[in-house]
Amino acid sequence: MKFTYPVWHKHHQQGEQKERYSSADKSGLPPGSLVHIGEVHNINTNVSVIQYNDDSLVHHDDVLFSELGQFNSDNLKTWINVDGLSDTRVVESIGKEFGIHPLVLEDILSTHQRAKLEEYEDYLYLVVKGISINSGDDFKLQYEQISILLLKNHVITFKERADDVFKPIYYRLENSKGRLRKSGSDYLTYAVLDAIVDEYFVVEDGLDGIFESLEDNLLLQPGPEVLHSIQQMRRELISMKRNISPLRELLSTIKRSDTALLKEDTLRYYDDVYDHVLRVTDALESYREMIASLQDVYLSSISNKMNETMKVLTIFASIFIPLTFIAGVYGMNFEYMPELKWRWAYPVLWSVFISTGLGLLVIFKKKKWL
Amino acid sequence: MKFTYPVWHKHHQQGEQKERYSSADKSGLPPGSLVHIGEVHNINTNVSVIQYNDDSLVHHDDVLFSELGQFNSDNLKTWINVDGLSDTRVVESIGKEFGIHPLVLEDILSTHQRAKLEEYEDYLYLVVKGISINSGDDFKLQYEQISILLLKNHVITFKERADDVFKPIYYRLENSKGRLRKSGSDYLTYAVLDAIVDEYFVVEDGLDGIFESLEDNLLLQPGPEVLHSIQQMRRELISMKRNISPLRELLSTIKRSDTALLKEDTLRYYDDVYDHVLRVTDALESYREMIASLQDVYLSSISNKMNETMKVLTIFASIFIPLTFIAGVYGMNFEYMPELKWRWAYPVLWSVFISTGLGLLVIFKKKKWL
Amino acid sequence: MKFTYPVWHKHHQQGEQKERYSSADKSGLPPGSLVHIGEVHNINTNVSVIQYNDDSLVHHDDVLFSELGQFNSDNLKTWINVDGLSDTRVVESIGKEFGIHPLVLEDILSTHQRAKLEEYEDYLYLVVKGISINSGDDFKLQYEQISILLLKNHVITFKERADDVFKPIYYRLENSKGRLRKSGSDYLTYAVLDAIVDEYFVVEDGLDGIFESLEDNLLLQPGPEVLHSIQQMRRELISMKRNISPLRELLSTIKRSDTALLKEDTLRYYDDVYDHVLRVTDALESYREMIASLQDVYLSSISNKMNETMKVLTIFASIFIPLTFIAGVYGMNFEYMPELKWRWAYPVLWSVFISTGLGLLVIFKKKKWL
Amino acid sequence: MKFTYPVWHKHHQQGEQKERYSSADKSGLPPGSLVHIGEVHNINTNVSVIQYNDDSLVHHDDVLFSELGQFNSDNLKTWINVDGLSDTRVVESIGKEFGIHPLVLEDILSTHQRAKLEEYEDYLYLVVKGISINSGDDFKLQYEQISILLLKNHVITFKERADDVFKPIYYRLENSKGRLRKSGSDYLTYAVLDAIVDEYFVVEDGLDGIFESLEDNLLLQPGPEVLHSIQQMRRELISMKRNISPLRELLSTIKRSDTALLKEDTLRYYDDVYDHVLRVTDALESYREMIASLQDVYLSSISNKMNETMKVLTIFASIFIPLTFIAGVYGMNFEYMPELKWRWAYPVLWSVFISTGLGLLVIFKKKKWL
Amino acid sequence: MKFTYPVWHKHHQQGEQKERYSSADKSGLPPGSLVHIGEVHNINTNVSVIQYNDDSLVHHDDVLFSELGQFNSDNLKTWINVDGLSDTRVVESIGKEFGIHPLVLEDILSTHQRAKLEEYEDYLYLVVKGISINSGDDFKLQYEQISILLLKNHVITFKERADDVFKPIYYRLENSKGRLRKSGSDYLTYAVLDAIVDEYFVVEDGLDGIFESLEDNLLLQPGPEVLHSIQQMRRELISMKRNISPLRELLSTIKRSDTALLKEDTLRYYDDVYDHVLRVTDALESYREMIASLQDVYLSSISNKMNETMKVLTIFASIFIPLTFIAGVYGMNFEYMPELKWRWAYPVLWSVFISTGLGLLVIFKKKKWL
Repeated sequence: MKFTYPVWHKHHQQGEQKERYSSADKSGLPPGSLVHIGEVHNINTNVSVIQYNDDSLVHHDDVLFSELGQFNSDNLKTWINVDGLSDTRVVESIGKEFGIHPLVLEDILSTHQRAKLEEYEDYLYLVVKGISINSGDDFKLQYEQISILLLKNHVITFKERADDVFKPIYYRLENSKGRLRKSGSDYLTYAVLDAIVDEYFVVEDGLDGIFESLEDNLLLQPGPEVLHSIQQMRRELISMKRNISPLRELLSTIKRSDTALLKEDTLRYYDDVYDHVLRVTDALESYREMIASLQDVYLSSISNKMNETMKVLTIFASIFIPLTFIAGVYGMNFEYMPELKWRWAYPVLWSVFISTGLGLLVIFKKKKWL
Repeated sequence: MKFTYPVWHKHHQQGEQKERYSSADKSGLPPGSLVHIGEVHNINTNVSVIQYNDDSLVHHDDVLFSELGQFNSDNLKTWINVDGLSDTRVVESIGKEFGIHPLVLEDILSTHQRAKLEEYEDYLYLVVKGISINSGDDFKLQYEQISILLLKNHVITFKERADDVFKPIYYRLENSKGRLRKSGSDYLTYAVLDAIVDEYFVVEDGLDGIFESLEDNLLLQPGPEVLHSIQQMRRELISMKRNISPLRELLSTIKRSDTALLKEDTLRYYDDVYDHVLRVTDALESYREMIASLQDVYLSSISNKMNETMKVLTIFASIFIPLTFIAGVYGMNFEYMPELKWRWAYPVLWSVFISTGLGLLVIFKKKKWL
Repeated sequence: MKFTYPVWHKHHQQGEQKERYSSADKSGLPPGSLVHIGEVHNINTNVSVIQYNDDSLVHHDDVLFSELGQFNSDNLKTWINVDGLSDTRVVESIGKEFGIHPLVLEDILSTHQRAKLEEYEDYLYLVVKGISINSGDDFKLQYEQISILLLKNHVITFKERADDVFKPIYYRLENSKGRLRKSGSDYLTYAVLDAIVDEYFVVEDGLDGIFESLEDNLLLQPGPEVLHSIQQMRRELISMKRNISPLRELLSTIKRSDTALLKEDTLRYYDDVYDHVLRVTDALESYREMIASLQDVYLSSISNKMNETMKVLTIFASIFIPLTFIAGVYGMNFEYMPELKWRWAYPVLWSVFISTGLGLLVIFKKKKWL
Repeated sequence: MKFTYPVWHKHHQQGEQKERYSSADKSGLPPGSLVHIGEVHNINTNVSVIQYNDDSLVHHDDVLFSELGQFNSDNLKTWINVDGLSDTRVVESIGKEFGIHPLVLEDILSTHQRAKLEEYEDYLYLVVKGISINSGDDFKLQYEQISILLLKNHVITFKERADDVFKPIYYRLENSKGRLRKSGSDYLTYAVLDAIVDEYFVVEDGLDGIFESLEDNLLLQPGPEVLHSIQQMRRELISMKRNISPLRELLSTIKRSDTALLKEDTLRYYDDVYDHVLRVTDALESYREMIASLQDVYLSSISNKMNETMKVLTIFASIFIPLTFIAGVYGMNFEYMPELKWRWAYPVLWSVFISTGLGLLVIFKKKKWL
Repeated sequence: MKFTYPVWHKHHQQGEQKERYSSADKSGLPPGSLVHIGEVHNINTNVSVIQYNDDSLVHHDDVLFSELGQFNSDNLKTWINVDGLSDTRVVESIGKEFGIHPLVLEDILSTHQRAKLEEYEDYLYLVVKGISINSGDDFKLQYEQISILLLKNHVITFKERADDVFKPIYYRLENSKGRLRKSGSDYLTYAVLDAIVDEYFVVEDGLDGIFESLEDNLLLQPGPEVLHSIQQMRRELISMKRNISPLRELLSTIKRSDTALLKEDTLRYYDDVYDHVLRVTDALESYREMIASLQDVYLSSISNKMNETMKVLTIFASIFIPLTFIAGVYGMNFEYMPELKWRWAYPVLWSVFISTGLGLLVIFKKKKWL
């Protein structure tokens, strides 16, 4: 199924000032319009092509979108990777060349997709979210949409950014003549998925560390900054769950799918990825419960502190207010106050002061307030 | 199946003082009575008809309900759009003309429906909720019920209000001879659904902005107004979920439906709408969790503030109450108080005052209260 | 299947002092014992019979239980309605006459049933809960169990109380020769269910009003009475959910049922009732979330108020306690206190008092406490 | 299938000091070892046998375990009931006599089972939990495990305690020649299940009463004892749910089971038990929600009370602290304080005192603190 | 299916400094690389082999990995147990010898697996988590991954640690010629699973004890340490649930599986394990609810305590602050204060003091503050 579609005028808005195209900006356009929707990462589109079989492997970098037609070979498997989506002509060319449905092309460019799997006659279309931890101070996750087209002899991947997620696969392709080189495009797709999900574990390990430091801070000094951190972690967990959980459905759909593009013995490997995703989602669920319990601890410890403050106030006030009253009484200027003339009144009063104070202290001690 | 029904006397109550017909007002009437139930938007009913095929397109505006019978053509697709439901005769005429089941006519007029799909022999009946953000200051969502009748060559849509939701479709119909013009009524229905769901994303973007400003306010000045806003947002999310979530079922029912009215290759496009709805409901779920966490933060920050207030009180009271007591002691009028005669008693006492005060300050400093 | 069962001695306890028979009272009796379990509404049992077809309609009121046998006609549809369950002989006679299973008779009389559908060979047995709002001051829902027996030519309904739920149906039967008169017992059953569910919407509208007034009260004066009202509404929602939600299962079971008692084209109408029930349960779910959020608001606003009180205390105490100390100092009676003799000491001290007070006020102002 | 198993040495530990055998004590024994695990109720094992058919009924009490073999009759139905599990030889004999699987025998003795149904070729094995309210002061539920073996002509029941749960069945068997006497072992099993579930309603009625008194206490005097009671009720509800909810699965499994041991027309009666269990679990769910809301009310009312206390403190302190300051000022001993000499100074000051106090009272009144 | 795989260079890193290999460390390696991922328990790998049939049993300890090939016998069942995973050559040899899929070998070594079941043509692969309570002071659960390979005549188990979980099985194998000795590898696998799940009950009993002591502490002295313990228990429950709940799926998968490796009559025993796991997860769920309610109690009791403190403060302050004011008034130095000269002023004032104080006490008593 070849498909030709016109170049709409909106394409040229792409590189302009606006940093983020919300979905709202597109309402009014016909479905199938190729406009990049989502954060623009301001990186150049870079296309690299690897062609390989058991014997040989060729790596082309910086391929022009006009050259894409020539990587068609029956006895070689071809992996086309596109880093950066700013140049929509690349997606267009690939769409034309491989007969991709216009809705798919639109989805590749609109980076707010849920992870999903779509089966077409000649190819599978997968959307997966790559996650990485920001290297900076603050705990902040970064997402990128990775689209995968699995054809009979081709795998085409589209990434928003130029990062190192696929590096391990390149390395294995080039350095080992193992299963990856021998198997078809379905195994390569597995390898790609596996590499993406492996990144999740890196993120999870990062979360582990942050979680522990959060917990320590909470015990040492439960100030508003800790509350802020808890809040932020909570939000990151919510968004992570939102991005990963559809992947579970995707992989269980793959397992039940009966497309000819996936060989029986490769499916076992997809099972493995499925297990990994389950593991990550289990972990996320646990983190969610733990962060909720941290919030509870935070509230409890504020209450605890307030209680402490209150006790200090009550002890001071309860001891000295009655004493001040007594002192006030003997500061009165009545003419007829017999005590004022007594010889030992003053020392006796001091002993009253001291014993009252000590008595109250003992009472508070008994109440375990001290 | 033609259906004749009498004009009940209740119709004339329509335009009167009562602004809202609750469902309760109708109990007692036989099912199938055509009475407009729901908020009356006080707009005139406006019928417009578009007839088109690959070659030509005719647009009729302000069509009278008596003229509806004449828009019947085999080689033209006809889209009848009704804005405003106050004139029930329009719905009556359409019911008569196209043989619509009386329960469906009743549902079109009663705007408290859940989103749903009903399959009849000759047509599908869809109810969907359109959502728009109020343009005013306050964050307030507005809902309208949009009913869609999908027949072989006709699409009939009923809207409560005269807004711009369908404008993009008009534009595409008139300006491009693409897929929309070439395809049948099922694709037009898809376009209508897509336009409605696209509005959800506009709303979601609006929510995003409001959410962020709420979060900032919460950190700067967590007063009761913020609580009020959180509360309101919560309620809007609840109602939004209630209106959107049945749409998910609707679309998954469509996918499994085997009606002849939907062509196989159009279903792929319905899948796309389904994905969008999933995305919106995922987002709603996330917002719900986040608003719940905001509420927690609000409570925590009130507690925090109370703790601060308490500390100030405790510090002032704990320092000055003991000192006042001592001053009170030397204000007593006993005859025999040797200290009163001492030369350096007064300066010594001041140094006691100052050192006691400083000592307590140091203690509070150590307790991290300052 | 005819069934004869003995009249147990327990029957005569019915009208006695005990106002409520709990389920516990019946343990020990064989299953199938006809004893009225539940609140006794102290109303006389009243049996009315309507027989109708397209042409004629006869209405018999105050039918004796011994006369029930004579309302058997092949070309007339018969609706027997029983208001009040105190006279168990009526249920007995009907059981005997129409061959109803003893367990069904027992369930009709025991008014703590869940809504349910039971299919027997010759009849369907439905239990539904009618809900009405108490007309008094307080918000209080009243439930009654309505049992429906759907036979080929008969519909038999049993109600605990003599209220107006079925009035609209009587009216339609008598005044219009529409579908209701033409259709069979299955359509009449639909009309009965629809009338019951329509009452739910009346209740829902009532809830709406109460909810709004609750919300206003909460903002104006969040005292313990509001808490009490929230609590009560919560409980009513819980019990309403418990009574309505099984109805959903009931109606979806009906849709899948393949009994000959329900004609294909009547099922469409049952779908409509199903939609209505879904709408009510959706609304209940929303109310539940909103009431939970009201509770949160209540707690937050108490905390807010406490914070306010605390601030007032802190401001008064923090300003006057230090000043009182200073005044106390110059109230001391030391012989050598040079300041006491200074000419301007007193006015200077006043300026110290005033400036300290104002200074603290400015500080509190800056802290946004004023 | 006959089965012989050795008598292990562990049997003799049974009657010794240890009051409770936890599951942990058994790890290390082969599965199938007959050791009583669970609370030992220190009651003698008592076996009673009832044999009956339409015509005759014989009741044997205190049957020895060695005599069990002789109650085998083809035209009599036999019900063997075992009260108390301390004498494991009884279970052994029954196992030998009727060819029961060793795992079943083990489960009968280990009273920590979940409610469950196991189908074997010649018999069904059911485990159900009996619940009763402790007759003492405190609200405390007691559980006992009731095992039921349903064979072709026998029903064998094992109870932990010697209570009256089965009394109504005995009574009916002996006094009426109804369905129970006429039907087979499957109907008797139904009667047993029904008797057990009827006890749940007794418990539920008890809960109802306790719940209401809890609610009243909470409004009158929300002290820590109420909190304690709420807590305890919560825990009882949790354990009750844990014991009852598996029964639901059990009964829905029975409905779908196609064993020859259950006749078609008896299954209708099992449906009835299923309905009852659903009703109990619905009620439990409602109680759970209500207890959670009680907890909320408790917290709110503590906050309310604290607020009240705070107001009293603030009113006293805010009125008298400023006045004390003024009094302090005129207690100072400066030589030059002109006011001290004024004739009307003292009465004027009193009027200042009174008006300040009244003014603050008015303000607090306006703030609705009084 | 024999499988040969190279020895990668990474193997030698195993014993080095790094104490824990996170999943992240492996990203970049091809799937199937044999690296031990997880906590390194620093124990030597110890292989023991038991071969048995009805008649004879041989136990080999400290088997070298190179000798593993020789334990192949058709009329003997062989159980190979590997304690400790540090020596990956053992896993390698077993993989080679029995033709295990490389992904399985990888999973055995990577101890972060979820419990799962994988069916291969010639063997089943099960991963289960063993749980034990730390013997030390603190409540801390320890997990170990136990991998089980079930072949026709072999069972191969891999444990992370050298503990006593399997001791009861050894004992039974050696001391009794019961079912375990007679049955095949599927029954041995059941025995292994049963032993692991029995440990869960030991843990549960431990939890029970800790829970009770926690509850007592909470009532006696609700300090931050109790909060800490609650928090820790919560976390342990979360992780326990995460480790056990997949086991439920595993066992219900086994029940539905139709592999020839599991005989029909052994499946009954697996059902038993399934029941046990259900029981544990039910208990965990209950604990979770109870721990949540403990947290609520904790918060409530802090609020209660604060309320108490507040009352003490309010009583002291409300009684003595007004009295101090009066004393202050008569400490003023006005010339014209007639009361000062009155003979009985002083005693009268004392009676005012005392009666005011008592009056306030009575009021507070009435308010139930005392």
